[in-house]
Amino acid sequence: MKEKIILLAHGSSDLNWSDTFVHLTRPACEQNKNVQLAFMELSSPSLELCVKRAAKEGYQKVTVLPLFLAKGKHLKKDVPGMLESYASTYGVATQLLDPIGEHPALADALLRIIEETVQDKE
Amino acid sequence: MKEKIILLAHGSSDLNWSDTFVHLTRPACEQNKNVQLAFMELSSPSLELCVKRAAKEGYQKVTVLPLFLAKGKHLKKDVPGMLESYASTYGVATQLLDPIGEHPALADALLRIIEETVQDKE
Repeated sequence: MKEKIILLAHGSSDLNWSDTFVHLTRPACEQNKNVQLAFMELSSPSLELCVKRAAKEGYQKVTVLPLFLAKGKHLKKDVPGMLESYASTYGVATQLLDPIGEHPALADALLRIIEETVQDKE
Repeated sequence: MKEKIILLAHGSSDLNWSDTFVHLTRPACEQNKNVQLAFMELSSPSLELCVKRAAKEGYQKVTVLPLFLAKGKHLKKDVPGMLESYASTYGVATQLLDPIGEHPALADALLRIIEETVQDKE
């Protein structure tokens, strides 16, 4: 099954804010052409546009990995509702993963950042 | 110089939300007794309480590592203002680091998470 992986950030009217996500996701998007960044609101491209395009390009499934640290109202309610609606409108299966902050890789990354912070001072 | 490292999350009235940060930061806090989790608002302990305690415990400096993926208004304006005020009230030096989302360790963690996501499907 042809599957698209969408890295979903919240979005902001502040261009510097969204640029951070472009930078953060660049290695992943360059490494895998099925991976793409999208935004829930305020920034482009929108989640809807990306799901629509994926369907048009023949992807049968869209898996959404939230670039959020924890699950709040957006991930518990808003995004599931959006995905349900887009799945029916564009005829693709959708799946919402847990936010990256719940993955052990994040705790490991945090240890590395703190280690560098402390070393810089020594 | 005795330095406290505060891992600063936004905070939420949703207990599940703040629990994710307790879990995310546990390895770091257990590994280094100078590392502690605090919240900007809505959750406990507050940033102010942690700075106050650090000063009382003899720390001369408080370094804040934001558990945010990007810099928005909170990190550009609110938190610097809070730290300036607490530094003067409690007599400690303060430093605000870049948010974790700007660190290369986060892009690496993201690659690892995506790799696992793709492998799980194969």
